[in-house]
Amino acid sequence: MDTKIIKRIASLRSLMKKKHLSAFIIPSTDPHSGEYVPEYWKTRQWISGFSGSAGIIVITLYKGGLWTDSRYFLQAEEQLKGSGIKLFKDRMPETPSISDWLGSELNPHDKIGIDGWVNTYEEAALLQSALATYNLELVPTNDIFNEIWTNRPPLPNNHPFILPMEYAGRPVSDKLSTIRHCIAENHADGILISALDEIAWILNMRGNDVHCNPVFISYLIITFDNATLYISPAKTTPKIRDYLKRNSIQIKNYDQIESDIKHYTGNCIQLPPETNYMLYKEAQANTMIVKKPSPVCLLKAIKNSTEINGFYRAMKRDGVAMVRFLMWLEHAIKSEKETEISISQKLYAFRAQQELFQGISFDTIAGYQEHGAIVHYEATTETASTLKPEGFLLLDSGAQYTDGTTDITRTIALGTVSKNQCIDYTLVLKGFIALSQAEFPQGTCGTQLDILARQFMWKAGINYGHGTGHGVGHFLNVHEGPHQIRMNNVPTPLQPGMIITNEPGIYKTGQYGIRTENTMLVVAGRTTEFGSFYKFEPLTLCPIDKTPICLEMMSSDEKTWLNTYHKKVYQQLAPLLTTEEQIWLGKATSEI
Amino acid sequence: MDTKIIKRIASLRSLMKKKHLSAFIIPSTDPHSGEYVPEYWKTRQWISGFSGSAGIIVITLYKGGLWTDSRYFLQAEEQLKGSGIKLFKDRMPETPSISDWLGSELNPHDKIGIDGWVNTYEEAALLQSALATYNLELVPTNDIFNEIWTNRPPLPNNHPFILPMEYAGRPVSDKLSTIRHCIAENHADGILISALDEIAWILNMRGNDVHCNPVFISYLIITFDNATLYISPAKTTPKIRDYLKRNSIQIKNYDQIESDIKHYTGNCIQLPPETNYMLYKEAQANTMIVKKPSPVCLLKAIKNSTEINGFYRAMKRDGVAMVRFLMWLEHAIKSEKETEISISQKLYAFRAQQELFQGISFDTIAGYQEHGAIVHYEATTETASTLKPEGFLLLDSGAQYTDGTTDITRTIALGTVSKNQCIDYTLVLKGFIALSQAEFPQGTCGTQLDILARQFMWKAGINYGHGTGHGVGHFLNVHEGPHQIRMNNVPTPLQPGMIITNEPGIYKTGQYGIRTENTMLVVAGRTTEFGSFYKFEPLTLCPIDKTPICLEMMSSDEKTWLNTYHKKVYQQLAPLLTTEEQIWLGKATSEI
Repeated sequence: MDTKIIKRIASLRSLMKKKHLSAFIIPSTDPHSGEYVPEYWKTRQWISGFSGSAGIIVITLYKGGLWTDSRYFLQAEEQLKGSGIKLFKDRMPETPSISDWLGSELNPHDKIGIDGWVNTYEEAALLQSALATYNLELVPTNDIFNEIWTNRPPLPNNHPFILPMEYAGRPVSDKLSTIRHCIAENHADGILISALDEIAWILNMRGNDVHCNPVFISYLIITFDNATLYISPAKTTPKIRDYLKRNSIQIKNYDQIESDIKHYTGNCIQLPPETNYMLYKEAQANTMIVKKPSPVCLLKAIKNSTEINGFYRAMKRDGVAMVRFLMWLEHAIKSEKETEISISQKLYAFRAQQELFQGISFDTIAGYQEHGAIVHYEATTETASTLKPEGFLLLDSGAQYTDGTTDITRTIALGTVSKNQCIDYTLVLKGFIALSQAEFPQGTCGTQLDILARQFMWKAGINYGHGTGHGVGHFLNVHEGPHQIRMNNVPTPLQPGMIITNEPGIYKTGQYGIRTENTMLVVAGRTTEFGSFYKFEPLTLCPIDKTPICLEMMSSDEKTWLNTYHKKVYQQLAPLLTTEEQIWLGKATSEI
Repeated sequence: MDTKIIKRIASLRSLMKKKHLSAFIIPSTDPHSGEYVPEYWKTRQWISGFSGSAGIIVITLYKGGLWTDSRYFLQAEEQLKGSGIKLFKDRMPETPSISDWLGSELNPHDKIGIDGWVNTYEEAALLQSALATYNLELVPTNDIFNEIWTNRPPLPNNHPFILPMEYAGRPVSDKLSTIRHCIAENHADGILISALDEIAWILNMRGNDVHCNPVFISYLIITFDNATLYISPAKTTPKIRDYLKRNSIQIKNYDQIESDIKHYTGNCIQLPPETNYMLYKEAQANTMIVKKPSPVCLLKAIKNSTEINGFYRAMKRDGVAMVRFLMWLEHAIKSEKETEISISQKLYAFRAQQELFQGISFDTIAGYQEHGAIVHYEATTETASTLKPEGFLLLDSGAQYTDGTTDITRTIALGTVSKNQCIDYTLVLKGFIALSQAEFPQGTCGTQLDILARQFMWKAGINYGHGTGHGVGHFLNVHEGPHQIRMNNVPTPLQPGMIITNEPGIYKTGQYGIRTENTMLVVAGRTTEFGSFYKFEPLTLCPIDKTPICLEMMSSDEKTWLNTYHKKVYQQLAPLLTTEEQIWLGKATSEI
């Protein structure tokens, strides 16, 4: 039993009593709606011990609950042990919603606190109306954890840096003018940008404040005449201040945002849905609001030619690192001493040797055999398996380079694999190839393409619970919108210049996991009397393991695609490899 | 020049002046939002001469306009000649919206009339707000055309008839109780049903009031205690009155609906979006409204086992008629005397010989060569082509039988066809087979499956502008919702018991059209650890022309599907055919 956690919960309860709150709800995000959160805002993990990327903790005066999804059921059970916090399994029919549970636990007119900085306005409004049916009152507060969280990690004060034009490709002034045009179309005269990757993109700057995401903590307000960056003074070097000045960007203190939003001098400000409750509330009291998604999301998703060329180069370097790793692994495995962690470190080392390497783009998923079936598995020293020359290793990894971000999954047969493993591997590969080969008219959304990746496994009664593809930032977040390829409706059409992953998988609980993933670029295809058609170009350059393929399940068309892809991988990477590596790659990419 | 039309427009303008209206907007539907409209409500056709199924006429004091889509551009140009009405091509960038056009033609504060009975509340509200930006006022009126339309066709007073339980399969009381359960879930205590096919389905009755649709003009209000059918007294026979009484359905006069909605005695009535403006307005003044789609739409779409068995039988009879027709056509074509009309009549005759035949389910589309490329082509004595033993005939037809509704398209090579025609025919067939073979998890919507039918032609830069599949009523409307298979998002998951068509096509303007269509049933497939999977069972029983297939483009899997389908067609139909017909069908369904 973790007495630290017990004490922390007790201190929160004391504070709640002082503030007349009967419950407090703690989500997993930050004021910028980030997917990865700086340590400073990992309040949910601090109070509960639960470290999963998604989950909401609710603490009442007597009980506690964690709502999280199936990816984290096992981990949550483990990490919550002894905390008194109960696991509520999201999306299970028997699981009450947070508001229904609070309705059954509390008395009418009880008050429930949330930190208004780490919930969006929409989330708070939904919660408010759900609690209202039980006569419960939602009370958004400021961040109250400073009062009880001793040794709280500070807000990161790393210096951001400039992304030179040779990588960014489009000047800040040009981006600002497009954004201003979009704001005007929405009948607003300003916009608040809270999303850190959007700020980084607009300003052609990057940072080191968030694990895996090269962003820096700040807000940005853009009006017709001005643009103001709200950032801690400790973060700005003379060089950065000069750079911003040259780009006509004012600098103000990060904390100044609240007051400036409150005293917004325009007529109407656009607030994207990720705006936090506090800032939304301040704006609402004094000005008209246009509640529309930020135009930057789509602008950023359509890469310019400099960014695309950067991706080409980054993919080559990443491919070289992957090939060296795979070649090393083939031999290393025989020792039966390598673990899921040691090979991840080795892969890191190969990548770190590459020019312009800036770090990994997400925590490596190295899942051997049954661990591969845990979709968001992250090996720890306690869980890490030792690899043997048999079965499947699922390896999902990626890197940040100054000229592009990579995301690749390969499933590698470390030795003998079963017939069923080969069949499932081939079902995944067939879907992966079908999506790679898609051609589609202008206006097509990812939802329409999703079935291409799933069709073969569906005929075998198999499915996977995650999306098939996500956008990838340019030396930015590895997950970005607005486009996706998934079963649910995502109404953003795919457009040339967008980057999207292709990552079908099969997960057999307790046995093995298989996923094959390339990052792809949407490119223009032919134009006919029926309109313009688009298609995909694979960006990722790395062999796909041929040994587990059931050749009799592959059409000649599919074999041709794989051979053509492998030929390209060889042609692009061979000039960058040693003779020994070239020989290895030649075998790995030989025709089937 | 059609002086009749000129005079009618003049008489409308006189009436408009008397009523201080500067414009009048005339849509193509009726108070029941029907797709097919009784003659009585064909006001738009009467005033303009334009007979297309979709289009809105706007008459100002000095000008006139028709807004219609590309299907009807040629026909509209022809039919509007001399009327002074200008064609506005819908969905073309240069085309102003109706409200923008009125904004440019009229003066602020001018009044614009619409018939509040033939516009839904939502349509009127949208129009109202669009006109408001020009300071124009929308004035919903009653039907004003009685004042000027001499010899207006009367409202049809045909007697509806009872659909016996052996065909309907589910008693009225049972349907009512499910509907009442759905209303209660929506927190309403009553519902107004305006859709004629829903009323027919609920009451297990059919009628003859609308061309091709076996429905009867009426409204139905269902409350927890009561159900009241609003129908012209002239339509009810003693037998019908007795039947309704036995089912606890009250009868009131059709015209009584307005007053009863006005004086609705419950607390809250559910009004589906197809409710017309007038009735919505009356309800709104006096009671709370739940604006939600009618639950009947989905209930009706999921066929019960009696209905499904009826479909099986109807499809056999329809298949026999189709086989006899195709065999006859093969010989008849040589005379070079048959036309698109004469063969449609012959097909009608073959169907009419079948038991339980009740008429056609939509106007037959028989498009020879370039006419096949006109998606909603209907041959007239002026346009009808004479068939020669060459090229493609596209034949889309269907029938109403007491036990089911059919909808089938076959494209038939009447003799030599070009290489390109064969390639396009095969692209359509490959898509058709891919969709036929689909298997998909519970929760999948048609939008996700749509690409299966289009994927091959997309790779050739070809697409079609219509949906891939629509629901089909059981001895009811050939087009029914809520599910569809199309590129746009339609969020209704496919469920076992739903009927859906599969009809990809390729249309080369001025050259030829190709479409292959089966009606299919959604059935349960396997259930695995990954959930329940569904698939399709083809219901249509008719050979698919093998002569234009490019065999080298077909995978062995696709060939197997076609051979299996053809074997089933032969097995199901042969026992019902003469020896000569069996021999013909044997050849038509022999293996490729």
